This record gives sequence, C-alpha cells and structure tokens, in this order.
Amino acid sequence: MKNTAYISDMQNWMNEFSFSHQVTVRFSETDMFGHMNNTVPFVYFEESRIEFFKALGFMQDWTRASSSTIPVVADLQCDFLKQVYFGEKLEICVKANELGTSSVDLHYLGKRENGEPCFVGRGRMVQLNKHTGKGEAWSEEQRSLFLSPLSIKN
Amino acid sequence: MKNTAYISDMQNWMNEFSFSHQVTVRFSETDMFGHMNNTVPFVYFEESRIEFFKALGFMQDWTRASSSTIPVVADLQCDFLKQVYFGEKLEICVKANELGTSSVDLHYLGKRENGEPCFVGRGRMVQLNKHTGKGEAWSEEQRSLFLSPLSIKN
Amino acid sequence: MKNTAYISDMQNWMNEFSFSHQVTVRFSETDMFGHMNNTVPFVYFEESRIEFFKALGFMQDWTRASSSTIPVVADLQCDFLKQVYFGEKLEICVKANELGTSSVDLHYLGKRENGEPCFVGRGRMVQLNKHTGKGEAWSEEQRSLFLSPLSIKN
Amino acid sequence: MKNTAYISDMQNWMNEFSFSHQVTVRFSETDMFGHMNNTVPFVYFEESRIEFFKALGFMQDWTRASSSTIPVVADLQCDFLKQVYFGEKLEICVKANELGTSSVDLHYLGKRENGEPCFVGRGRMVQLNKHTGKGEAWSEEQRSLFLSPLSIKN
Repeated sequence: MKNTAYISDMQNWMNEFSFSHQVTVRFSETDMFGHMNNTVPFVYFEESRIEFFKALGFMQDWTRASSSTIPVVADLQCDFLKQVYFGEKLEICVKANELGTSSVDLHYLGKRENGEPCFVGRGRMVQLNKHTGKGEAWSEEQRSLFLSPLSIKN
Repeated sequence: MKNTAYISDMQNWMNEFSFSHQVTVRFSETDMFGHMNNTVPFVYFEESRIEFFKALGFMQDWTRASSSTIPVVADLQCDFLKQVYFGEKLEICVKANELGTSSVDLHYLGKRENGEPCFVGRGRMVQLNKHTGKGEAWSEEQRSLFLSPLSIKN
Repeated sequence: MKNTAYISDMQNWMNEFSFSHQVTVRFSETDMFGHMNNTVPFVYFEESRIEFFKALGFMQDWTRASSSTIPVVADLQCDFLKQVYFGEKLEICVKANELGTSSVDLHYLGKRENGEPCFVGRGRMVQLNKHTGKGEAWSEEQRSLFLSPLSIKN
Repeated sequence: MKNTAYISDMQNWMNEFSFSHQVTVRFSETDMFGHMNNTVPFVYFEESRIEFFKALGFMQDWTRASSSTIPVVADLQCDFLKQVYFGEKLEICVKANELGTSSVDLHYLGKRENGEPCFVGRGRMVQLNKHTGKGEAWSEEQRSLFLSPLSIKN
C-alpha cells in the first residue's frame, strides 16, 4: 500500500477501530467506468460518522432545531486503494484520532467483508456555535464520550 | 413515441414551452450501464423548476428563512424516451400546465441540442403554509406571474 | 389520501406486497427545507428494485459484462404522502404488478416503521437486448420467477 | 485562513490557475443544515477536472469504449473555508500541480463571483491500463498538453 501521511503502520491503524457501520454499494453510486464513483466514499464517511456520533450519544443534540451548535466539516480526504464495485458490502470504520478544543480529527477505513481495505480517509470536524460562527469548546461530557471504548480502542 | 397520459399531441406539447434551462450530464450521473442513471432527470427537473420560479420571480421568497410558505412536491413522474450519455448538453424545458388553488401542475421536457426529446415528465407542486402544514392559496400576484408569457406560451 | 390512478384501494394495495428492503434516510439526502429531498425516493426505488430482482434471482445475469440484455427503466413516478426526515428507517416494498412481453410494471411503497405510508410509486422496466436495442421477451423461467410468492402475494 | 500542507502562499497559489469551470449550487446539493453538503465539492472537482481534461484534449480518448487506458483517482482532499449556500455561482479552478510518470497531482480552488475562496483541494489521478491494472506512462503528447498554458500559468 502506498504511503499516507496519517497512517504510520497500516496494521496497527486498522486494529484501533472499534466502531463500524455497514453500507452496500448502490447501482446509482457506480459510474460508466463500471465501478463505485470516487465521490461516494465521502457520502459513506458522512453516514458512518453520524452513526458513530449517534452511538456516542451526541448527534441527537445537533439535529434539534433549538441546538445552538452544529458540527461542521473543516476538511476531508480519501485515499483509494482498490476499485470497488456495485453490490459490494463494505464496513466503514470510524475512530476519533485526536481531540482539539472544539474539533476532532476522525479517521475512516472502508473494508470488504474479507477484511481487505478498499479506501481510507480522515477529516477534521469542528463544533460551531450557530450564532457566533466560532468554534464552541467540547463540554466535559462530550470529551469523555469521545474517549469511551467505542471511540478509541485502547 | 409511446403514449403518455399527459401529452395528447407531442409536437403541440413541445411547442408550448417557452422557458428552458441547460444542463450537461456529469460523469458522476452515469452508472455502470454506461448511460445517465434513471434517478438523474428528477435532479434536472428540480434545478430547472427552481430556475423557472426564479425567472417568474418567486423563488426568492420561498428560500427566505422568514417565509411562511414553502413549495412542496406532491408528485413527480418521468418517461424515458432515449438513452442519454455522459457529457450531453440537454435543454430542460418547464411550463405551468394547470394552476390549482394552491398548487400547480408543471410539465417538463428534456431534449438534445438537435431538438430530439430524451425524456418528458410532469409533477404537481403545492405551496404549503409552514405553520399549518396546509396548502396556501396563490396570491393574485403569483397567479398573474404564472400566466406570464414566460410561463405558458400563448 | 389523495387519489393515484394506479391504486384503487389503498389498504388492499398495501397488503399485496411481500418483498421489502430497509433504508435509512442519509444526512446528505436531506435539503435546506429540512426534509428528505424529493429526488431521493427514486434512488430508494432503484436500490429496492434491484434487491427484489436479486431475491428473485435474475439481477445476477444483468450485471455480467457478457449479458446480452439489460433492464432499462421506461418510466417512473412517485406520489409524496408525508414529509420524511433525516434518520428515519423506511421499508421500501416492491411488487410486480403486471407482466408484459418484455416489460414489467413494478409498484413501490415507502412506509415508516409504524406502517404509515410516506410515498408510493410505480414504473415500468423493459428487458432490452444490448445489440438490437429492442425489447427482449421474458423467458419462461423469468416469467415464473416473477409469479413466485415473493413477487406477488397470493 | 488555516494552513493546508499543499498551499505555501495562498495568493500566489490562487494566481497560478488559468482554467476554470462554473457551477451553481443545486437545491438537492444542500442539506438540513441549510448549506451545501460537504460531499458536493468532490462532485464539482470531478466535473471541473473532466472539463479541464477536455480543454487539454484528452478526455475524448478515455471515454471511448475501445480505449486501453482510464484515468483513476488515487486520492482526493478538500479544505472547507467558507459555508456555501443554495444558488451560489462558483468558479471551480483546476491546475496540474505536478506531473509523475503515469500520474498527475491536480489542485482545485472553489471561489465566489467576488473572488473569495470557499474551498480548496487537491488529488492525484493515475492513468491506468485497463488490461494490466497498472499505471500507464503519459505519452510525450500528453506531457506537452499538461504543460500547455491552459494547464499551468507561465
């Protein structure tokens, strides 16, 4: 596998995930080259990141109209390792790699049922205050949720 | 061309459009069968319907957060006449076929640069009151906008 | 519920489905009006129709590069009954309503976990010969698969 | 603006683009947070990259069924600088930042009509031989096309 700056040891890195969400590649997600279009992993990353946040217990707040904060994506990246095809079942693994004051660096791994990695990625999310437009520091409760076993495997 | 219940005479029907919006088929809108995926015309219909509403001058109100009404799609349909391919430039024509108290039946035509129709469609929109969730009757101003030359050709 | 030409009795019609596929509304499938965008049911229809074909046992042929036939969508329609929101789990039910020589009229029902219908639809598919571009008649095997208990109840 | 590893001086970097393609944010590309969904820039990158390749004159080969090579995305990333909203007209600028044996590192800039950058990105493409699945070295003609004024300013 080629080098990606955010993965120092692929096997260790893969072992650190404890949360995953399953997706199946839709027909409408393929393109005329016969494989999954390259824009699609970002859709899977979003879906899986939200499931991860739900599992941790704080997506619920963010989608309330009355919430004063929303999570905003600061950056996203994806490295494509293998071509992926229609109908494939993929596990999209998510972990919180690093926690900032009001942000979190999430890592992603898309792998086949046989464990083979197809694409990897990462991206930073910021908790934004809707009114000020500035980052809103994580609460103690949020910080401890991010550090739960679900989030980062020992 | 096969029969569609909402078109009695294809040539007359095509001549009645005076508004159109151009789209180009994206690579990500194709699928592994090598043509434009069948879910895509509905994206084009929405984009072109909104351009049509902008040209008539009332999309602006609907997208204001303070607006008490929003347009909601009641139904949509599309008949596929020809396969469409990556990179094709299409004219998406829109007209207001029939005006109800709080709804409008819109007709759509997707055609090639040479005038050949590729898909046709229709769908009813309802102006909904956000608070009551009920249909909100068109104002006199809206009714006259719908009857402008842009909307229905003579 | 408002009238749709293809449903004579809503309760009977709903009872006739025996196949369904579950989807969850993605965040990227919502729009700025706060609900599922109106183009999305067609994505669900395609995904569920393919799962239906897989269950019947003939999607496998169509996606082989060597297949001489592909299924093509002739028309599609959707009636929106209820607004649908982010994160909702929906059952997308599919049945073969009527079988033509080389086509099939499929019916669709999208319903909430509590059984409430949110949107309904239908659309005709044609089995096309890749080389001639004409409809290819269903084989006896295909016809009997369509008439299996999975496809049409009773 | 925050630091991105692939931009040393933002103003210089922005000045180096000479190709751009215009897009308008679709309603279906917004999400319930009221802005353009974060998966959408990757769709714009693909569309604009292909227009860039067309302008250079070699997309035409790649989409021929008989072509022995296809361009494949090796990685993609996007940094989000500003929230973007429905209906905004954006210029998506593309340039070839660095040419490898069979790959090219493309840079992307999405900016408003007033010149304000909204998102930036990059990604490496590889020209793949369909039969061997390996990278296929750029021809001399392709190399000189990449070095044309359209591709890299001065």
